[in-house]
Amino acid sequence: MHAHLTPNDVTAMFLALSVLLGGAKLVGELAQKIDQPAVLGEILAGILLGPTVLGNLAPRVYATLFPSMGVIPIVIDSVTTIGVVLFLLTAGIEVDLSSLFRQGKCAVLVSSLGVLCPFSLGWAAAWSFPRFFGAEPGADRLNFALFVGTALSISALPVIAKILMDLKLFRSDLGTVVVSSAMFDDLVGWILFSVVLGMMNAGAQPTNIKHTIILTLLFVILMLTAGRWLVDKALPRIQAHASWPGGVLGFIFTLTLAAAAFTEYAGIHAIFGAFIMGIALGESSHLRKQTREHIHQVVTNVFAPLFFASIGLRINFATHFSLGVTATVFAVACLGKVLGAGLGARLGGMDRRTSIAVGMGMNARGAMEIILGLLALQLGLIRERLFVALVVMALLTSLISGPAIHYLLQRRRAVSLKDSLSSKLFLQNLFARNRLEAIRELCELSAEAVGDSSDRLFRIVRERELISGSGLENGVAVPHARVNGLAKPVVAVGKSDDGIDFDARDGKRARIIILVLTGDTQSQIDLLADVGDLFSRQDTIDQALTARSFVEFMAAVNAPVK
Amino acid sequence: MHAHLTPNDVTAMFLALSVLLGGAKLVGELAQKIDQPAVLGEILAGILLGPTVLGNLAPRVYATLFPSMGVIPIVIDSVTTIGVVLFLLTAGIEVDLSSLFRQGKCAVLVSSLGVLCPFSLGWAAAWSFPRFFGAEPGADRLNFALFVGTALSISALPVIAKILMDLKLFRSDLGTVVVSSAMFDDLVGWILFSVVLGMMNAGAQPTNIKHTIILTLLFVILMLTAGRWLVDKALPRIQAHASWPGGVLGFIFTLTLAAAAFTEYAGIHAIFGAFIMGIALGESSHLRKQTREHIHQVVTNVFAPLFFASIGLRINFATHFSLGVTATVFAVACLGKVLGAGLGARLGGMDRRTSIAVGMGMNARGAMEIILGLLALQLGLIRERLFVALVVMALLTSLISGPAIHYLLQRRRAVSLKDSLSSKLFLQNLFARNRLEAIRELCELSAEAVGDSSDRLFRIVRERELISGSGLENGVAVPHARVNGLAKPVVAVGKSDDGIDFDARDGKRARIIILVLTGDTQSQIDLLADVGDLFSRQDTIDQALTARSFVEFMAAVNAPVK
Repeated sequence: MHAHLTPNDVTAMFLALSVLLGGAKLVGELAQKIDQPAVLGEILAGILLGPTVLGNLAPRVYATLFPSMGVIPIVIDSVTTIGVVLFLLTAGIEVDLSSLFRQGKCAVLVSSLGVLCPFSLGWAAAWSFPRFFGAEPGADRLNFALFVGTALSISALPVIAKILMDLKLFRSDLGTVVVSSAMFDDLVGWILFSVVLGMMNAGAQPTNIKHTIILTLLFVILMLTAGRWLVDKALPRIQAHASWPGGVLGFIFTLTLAAAAFTEYAGIHAIFGAFIMGIALGESSHLRKQTREHIHQVVTNVFAPLFFASIGLRINFATHFSLGVTATVFAVACLGKVLGAGLGARLGGMDRRTSIAVGMGMNARGAMEIILGLLALQLGLIRERLFVALVVMALLTSLISGPAIHYLLQRRRAVSLKDSLSSKLFLQNLFARNRLEAIRELCELSAEAVGDSSDRLFRIVRERELISGSGLENGVAVPHARVNGLAKPVVAVGKSDDGIDFDARDGKRARIIILVLTGDTQSQIDLLADVGDLFSRQDTIDQALTARSFVEFMAAVNAPVK
Repeated sequence: MHAHLTPNDVTAMFLALSVLLGGAKLVGELAQKIDQPAVLGEILAGILLGPTVLGNLAPRVYATLFPSMGVIPIVIDSVTTIGVVLFLLTAGIEVDLSSLFRQGKCAVLVSSLGVLCPFSLGWAAAWSFPRFFGAEPGADRLNFALFVGTALSISALPVIAKILMDLKLFRSDLGTVVVSSAMFDDLVGWILFSVVLGMMNAGAQPTNIKHTIILTLLFVILMLTAGRWLVDKALPRIQAHASWPGGVLGFIFTLTLAAAAFTEYAGIHAIFGAFIMGIALGESSHLRKQTREHIHQVVTNVFAPLFFASIGLRINFATHFSLGVTATVFAVACLGKVLGAGLGARLGGMDRRTSIAVGMGMNARGAMEIILGLLALQLGLIRERLFVALVVMALLTSLISGPAIHYLLQRRRAVSLKDSLSSKLFLQNLFARNRLEAIRELCELSAEAVGDSSDRLFRIVRERELISGSGLENGVAVPHARVNGLAKPVVAVGKSDDGIDFDARDGKRARIIILVLTGDTQSQIDLLADVGDLFSRQDTIDQALTARSFVEFMAAVNAPVK
């Protein structure tokens, strides 16, 4: 008879997962509201729910939610491991091999210097001051130094991927260089670590190391050549003969789980296999957009947040914290990585600003260091204070990575309609019967927000309107004008069931009238373009028309961008 | 420090999940090829991979794939439990409460008689012959009889839901009656079982029973009234203010996990909470089709198969098998359920054939009996042979349920284009320059399959073609004719890069020419309707046009039906 979860275990499992997911999504959404990548909010949610904060403030609640004994830790570990593996599958699918090859030279430079610099710095520092860094008294000095060097040089592929996705830079040249370099880094880092592990476990280690290296190289080469070809041949056959999309989804997930098992067996982490498998799948032109979309949405919005939040559950950051060690580890790690990877990018031909951005991107650490650190802790190589320092370093580097890239590559952020709407400036039913009445009604509504008299507003909007009608197609009109001295755009929306003639080219009466008032021409262009873009989609128009409240209108405007 | 999975555990976990999923999908697809619901193939895959077959033929392979010691059983149990909970969420979303209320009287009759009959029969049989049925020597006779009665009366909501979905009957009146009755059944069954459990555990049992009943009723009533209302208010707000569709997906999954935790805590199974939550979510008009689709596809095609396959892993069906007990349990269970539920449906106003179909639908058992049986086994109430008999009964009833409904409700199955295509009757490039040449070319290709001379075929197709051109819109033409004595339709496809004028209404030259030859008018209408339907979608046409082989053409035809 196999072991089973008891009803208590099942209750505890669903409770823990629900709190973890709910917390991660909530803080993740809040992070996005202040222009931070969701992943940072998700990690922060884990720290809040973990031993550091909740475990400290309300230990009983914490112990009930996330018991440290029994099967729940194992269950959470397995669910979040599956989560990160599936996340790497979607990250892999998004990788575009052809642009990766185009970036080849640069990626090789970035990754090799990005590993070499932090590795040497970390190795030298740990070799010189092993006691300070927190080597276990009995640990071998060389091994310890090798471990620290390795731990400082691995980039966090999943964190980087999420940051780049959140910043919409994943498929850019910068994103491709960073991700492909991080991939090489990972590979090198894991091989280095398996060497360290091998040297620690006296015995048959050289075989194991060779084993890992050979299996990994074979896997990568085979998957990106023969595997890719086979997947490309298999996909249309499955789509032709199996149920749709069930057959394809089953095929993709089965292959991913198998690849994860194989790379974990080979001695590197399961996520590496899922990532390579994702690349092989994503390269096939037969993988339909709809299939990608199903996997991407459920995985990045449900499984990935569970994983990122779970990092914070693993450790109490307060009790094992040493400022000196943490600051030193952080400084050495950043210095080595940003200098190394940045130099690589510069040598690879990127401009100075972008090179630093690449360095900052590669600087993000995360899950890998934590897993590595955990193994080293369990094997008696390092002490808790170094482990905590590694985790804090990983989190801080992840934390500054997004904002730094955002700052370095700062481009003018376009003003969007969504951000300019407000429930106060929304009229469900206009009384107006013609366009000038409609404009007057909306100007009266907006006067307070603009800080000007409604008469003056009406005059300037009417003047513009009479030059040429502001009716777009499909029953949308955008009367607009520049109002000198207006710092922030003011947008008022009115709906008319009967429709009002705004002289549209398609002759349709406008049923959604959007008054756009801006202080500068650039914002005006941004907003008009955004309106034109949004309301070119029939489903958005239909939803906006049937909206019975501001909230429903917002939901329509916030609809999927396909 | 929390417990963690070792690298070996991670390898074993992904290996086991990959084999389980791959096996389930493979046998599931094969089952669909012979017109059986996929779920039966998925359960069968589990039995093949489990102790019964693989464990017997290749015990070492089996022990490597699915070790019975260590953490892997716990991990598989938790992943598959999450799988079935998510599956019940999608089943709940699909339930249409308004049609459920319309079926109210019938559903109440079906479910109450459908519980009462098998319960009384099972109770009486077990009370009369406890030793024969496999009561543990020390077990209380009354408790044992109550348990057997309960175990025979619960219908398997997930299995029934999957069978009805597979047969495309889920949203029909029959489906709604069966599913809502199964839901009531579940509720009553779990309450009965908690009573049995309470009577077994001497002590504070009456409180626990009351507890379960009160909490469950409160949960159901609150969720389907206030909960439903709150969800309907919350959804547009989340869609308006959170990221899309991430916010909504996070909200749905968080609520589902929380509801699962609550009902498991209340003393009934976690899947019940997920199901009720699904109903509350599905009732909201603000839940977008795309969101449903993402959840539905990933869950029913990846997580549900994992669960259904895992049932077969739980037990060796060979060693603990007793034909006498199994046959008796099976006979009593079927008799009670089909008679009871069928009678209920008849009294509820359904015709005789449909009533028997309802009885056969309700007769499907599955996970619930197995979980129940397992608990009873662990508590020392029953012996292995009764447990195996219950499992076999559950599987057999599930196995006959689909085909029986299919047989009872047999409607003419429409002939589909997809099933009529063949690689032998496919021409990537027609030589023809005009429509008569094209028809001749396709007739020559088809002559062997039809068993007639190509000249005669050409004559009758030309005759029909010249009455009115067979060009549809968007570059598709369907020359067709009736060929007397043709048992099975013959369909030949030819493509023309330059296009051939088939006198289409939109004036476009046909680039896909589909020759349809049938023995009867009904098949001809079916096939022409299918072609018209398929090729009204621009993406299907585009894919079919760019197809470079028969397999790619099939993939286009087999595209998503939206």
